[in-house]
Amino acid sequence: MLAVHTDDLIYIERHESDVPWLKIFTHESRKEFSECTPEEKHAIWDALDVIEKLMLEYYEPAKINIASFGNMLPHVHWHIMARFKDDSHFPEPMWGATQRESTLSLPAFEPFVELLRKRLV
Amino acid sequence: MLAVHTDDLIYIERHESDVPWLKIFTHESRKEFSECTPEEKHAIWDALDVIEKLMLEYYEPAKINIASFGNMLPHVHWHIMARFKDDSHFPEPMWGATQRESTLSLPAFEPFVELLRKRLV
Repeated sequence: MLAVHTDDLIYIERHESDVPWLKIFTHESRKEFSECTPEEKHAIWDALDVIEKLMLEYYEPAKINIASFGNMLPHVHWHIMARFKDDSHFPEPMWGATQRESTLSLPAFEPFVELLRKRLV
Repeated sequence: MLAVHTDDLIYIERHESDVPWLKIFTHESRKEFSECTPEEKHAIWDALDVIEKLMLEYYEPAKINIASFGNMLPHVHWHIMARFKDDSHFPEPMWGATQRESTLSLPAFEPFVELLRKRLV
């Protein structure tokens, strides 16, 4: 786990994976997204938009994937991942069957986080 | 496939499954969500909010799941599902490994759609 960002409403962590993968949490524990305040919803949508655009620029992935499940951890959190044709699961979701041994060679994560922090201010 | 709703920006279809599952598409074919217009983004967020609230009321599920992948079909679409502890995959995402034969006995889908259409106006 790497703390990527925090503000009054949300915090963002890295999820360890062969693909670039961030998770956005609300500070307040809420079970369903529709139970979030308008401010929390906007903070999450804005963060997803900023992260998606930077992932597209920085990693040039085949596709961005976004999901919110919370079946095991019923605390609102969103996943956003950059997906590549030679990643471990493509074209399946990262929760699907493994397709291959990942052969990804990606740009370093730390400079991505530095850029992201500047855009999330 | 069942056409549930259409308006100027989006349309909504049923996805056949053991769980209540809808898919929201933009009419315009866009690959990534961040490429949508602000109006399209808001139409999708609003529809997700309305659908989630009605699924919680009508089906009383254990959890709502939301996802946007598009790895096979690179045209912006969002999945929203009501999940139950005895559904085929819980607590795994619907894209994960099957956990059991589903024993769900749910309220009829058509009255749900009728209610949903009234709220989406």
